[in-house]
Amino acid sequence: MNQQRRDFLKITGLAGAGLTTGHLGYSRTPSARIPHPPKQTFNMCGFGAPKIDTVRVGYLGIGNRGAGALKRIVHLENVTVQAVCDVRPERIDEAKKALEKTAHQPAYYSGKPDAWKAVCDRPDIDLIYICTPWNLHTPMALYAMEQGKHVACEIPIATTVDDCWKLVETSERTRKHCMMLENCCYDFFELLTLNMARQGFFGELVHVEGAYIHDIFDSLFDKSKRYDLWRLKENQRNGNLYPTHGLGPIAQVLDINRGDQMDYLVSMSGNDFMLAKKAGELAKTDDDFRQFNGKSFRGNMNTTTIRTKKGRTIMLQHDVSSQRPYSRIHLVSGTKATAQKYPLPGRISKGHDWMTEQEYKALEQHYQPEIVKRVGELAKQVGGHGGMDFLMDWRLIDCLRNGLPLDQDVYDAALWSSIGPLSEWSVAHRSNSIDVPDFTNGSWKTNKPVDISLATGGTTRVKNL
Amino acid sequence: MNQQRRDFLKITGLAGAGLTTGHLGYSRTPSARIPHPPKQTFNMCGFGAPKIDTVRVGYLGIGNRGAGALKRIVHLENVTVQAVCDVRPERIDEAKKALEKTAHQPAYYSGKPDAWKAVCDRPDIDLIYICTPWNLHTPMALYAMEQGKHVACEIPIATTVDDCWKLVETSERTRKHCMMLENCCYDFFELLTLNMARQGFFGELVHVEGAYIHDIFDSLFDKSKRYDLWRLKENQRNGNLYPTHGLGPIAQVLDINRGDQMDYLVSMSGNDFMLAKKAGELAKTDDDFRQFNGKSFRGNMNTTTIRTKKGRTIMLQHDVSSQRPYSRIHLVSGTKATAQKYPLPGRISKGHDWMTEQEYKALEQHYQPEIVKRVGELAKQVGGHGGMDFLMDWRLIDCLRNGLPLDQDVYDAALWSSIGPLSEWSVAHRSNSIDVPDFTNGSWKTNKPVDISLATGGTTRVKNL
Repeated sequence: MNQQRRDFLKITGLAGAGLTTGHLGYSRTPSARIPHPPKQTFNMCGFGAPKIDTVRVGYLGIGNRGAGALKRIVHLENVTVQAVCDVRPERIDEAKKALEKTAHQPAYYSGKPDAWKAVCDRPDIDLIYICTPWNLHTPMALYAMEQGKHVACEIPIATTVDDCWKLVETSERTRKHCMMLENCCYDFFELLTLNMARQGFFGELVHVEGAYIHDIFDSLFDKSKRYDLWRLKENQRNGNLYPTHGLGPIAQVLDINRGDQMDYLVSMSGNDFMLAKKAGELAKTDDDFRQFNGKSFRGNMNTTTIRTKKGRTIMLQHDVSSQRPYSRIHLVSGTKATAQKYPLPGRISKGHDWMTEQEYKALEQHYQPEIVKRVGELAKQVGGHGGMDFLMDWRLIDCLRNGLPLDQDVYDAALWSSIGPLSEWSVAHRSNSIDVPDFTNGSWKTNKPVDISLATGGTTRVKNL
Repeated sequence: MNQQRRDFLKITGLAGAGLTTGHLGYSRTPSARIPHPPKQTFNMCGFGAPKIDTVRVGYLGIGNRGAGALKRIVHLENVTVQAVCDVRPERIDEAKKALEKTAHQPAYYSGKPDAWKAVCDRPDIDLIYICTPWNLHTPMALYAMEQGKHVACEIPIATTVDDCWKLVETSERTRKHCMMLENCCYDFFELLTLNMARQGFFGELVHVEGAYIHDIFDSLFDKSKRYDLWRLKENQRNGNLYPTHGLGPIAQVLDINRGDQMDYLVSMSGNDFMLAKKAGELAKTDDDFRQFNGKSFRGNMNTTTIRTKKGRTIMLQHDVSSQRPYSRIHLVSGTKATAQKYPLPGRISKGHDWMTEQEYKALEQHYQPEIVKRVGELAKQVGGHGGMDFLMDWRLIDCLRNGLPLDQDVYDAALWSSIGPLSEWSVAHRSNSIDVPDFTNGSWKTNKPVDISLATGGTTRVKNL
């Protein structure tokens, strides 16, 4: 454990316990600040790596998301699946099925927990695509970059602030892309509202909201879906454990890391009304659940609010156990207009009333971003959460092939993921505020906003469907 | 200024300035606790005052809300409008118009700022109904109770925690009702979900949300609508200034003050993007606005989160200036079901999908509360925000006539209103948490939930419409 991590644990109190409330009934803990980080050694924001005509990819983890990624990638030209790895041999069979009848002839790796390292070691790979459980994201991303590979990694890319800083330091030093696969940035309403924000439709932005409200309660306890019950284990942490689906799109709308920056946050969780109870019931008949006896779990509902340097606010929620319809909220509120996606359908207003379907459609046509015009229909045919996953893959490959900066760089990966551990700190300290680290070390003041206009690039072709 | 108030100001830092952030970039201020309050001298929760057959009412303030109240009350039997007061003579004319062709022959009071005291002094009045600007609510309510009158007062009933305590102490000592006129507790979806919560429809309650999102930007600057620009002046405070419309109904759902209690809260405001700018523009041509030159205003959007003793959470928002469709959110989220009113129409779910209109209607029929069955249709005809105002008046008069406890007692008035000043403290202290005072002094543990079942009472008749 290095000094920085020790400092962080000391400051945040995550290493200790019992400091939350004083016996007088109120917290004695002031809001905290992460120790001053190292200087930026190279600015990865806006950085385009050397062009790669055909992108050679190695896939780590063929569980739920990895299998889907393989099924999508075969629809792109100028991509070769070079290697595929999963610790479980049966998942390799799944991968082979996804690639049969295609030209891809990857090497397969399995059986050993560290089989993935051999994939990263191969000299004939450009990009490592990581779809493993959360605790493997950072070690795999770091190792891959050290071996000279670009990285695309599932969410969240890290679960501690220290790991976020390690990713930033490594990406800057190796000049390898470290993108988090925040697919919701490529969903259609989100891309539309991003473009509208860019055109000034909302006036000055005042407030945004995002969430991951998704009833996956049963699947948390499903051993066939969650290898080694990894996700239930993660749910023993208490905070907003999965912030990036809601946060990614609204952070892009606010130009966070690129014109504005998060300043501080507060986070509140309620009690756990469901998880410990269910784990306890299962433990009576299934020994695999006995490890959870007497353990506490995440408060079922978490609300986190974040203030930016420019005085805008972000409200972010997390609930993956209550019986609620799916929602990422995606609210964009400005001085001149408002958009809100959930509860579906997405809606837009320039005053006291939401627009009619007809007005909405006219607006959609006017503000439809170029990437949707060019690849939107194909993406819907390929699928993957309605098409957004394919748009994300297409854009990633297209940027690598054209030497363009990625839409999500290592600072976004680090910042969006850091909300997890920062919210844990606040929840554990009677919801007091904690400063959000500036992973760009001040570069946010001059970094350019994300540009998905396809003014350059856009050359990657989709195979006949 | 008494000792308690001095203590509060000292603790909260509202008397001082510049303590918000230390030069190291993070707050040094721990979350705070309101000084220990006096003991409860009498429990007003569940208290039914002696029956009053015909309720004699004095109205203070005939602005927007007071004029509406007069127009509604004439539809009730067993009520006499005994006195009407407004500092502005032209508003008295408005009152006379509302009462012409009725049997009411009130005395009218006007002209002097303290004309209202003479109304409270009259021996032939049972209830003082207060619809004046916010800063007059507490002094009028206190004076009225001291003169032996019950009080019904517009929202918020107080803007400082100290005033909240004064109201509690006075109501307990005088044993006079002190009800806040939180009309949204009587709106139809709110009453429905309250009844559903009582029947266990939502399972264990996990999280609730409320808001006052209402674009009244123009009216804040309208001298004809806002006497002496009082509401613009109030908007120089920074926090959730108008919490009770959103909070009242969800606090009743959670049995706050009656089975659960608020523990602590955090509050965050963004910047002001609109108010100072508009005031500055107006000041160029209108001297009345020059008083606002160089003054700062409320951050346009405020988000407050509150944790209860039983580990449920409340998310509460306030925005009265951005261009957004009206919303009080009214989300009720439990382990078994969810309801959400805004964006309209209200919807209910017991799983991954919202119910169809048909399913919703069946549910509505099953859970329709008795008060709506009995008075709902009449209330819609009388009107007042769609009928809820009349339901509220009917219920208030009916409780007084039958010697029943009121649905909203002084503890609710104090607690719901206290969110204003508590949120101001948190906003001013980098959103750190502050303990919410327990105005019931522990009685919340045994107080009985609000009962709007009409098992008793319900005898008050509505005149032929």
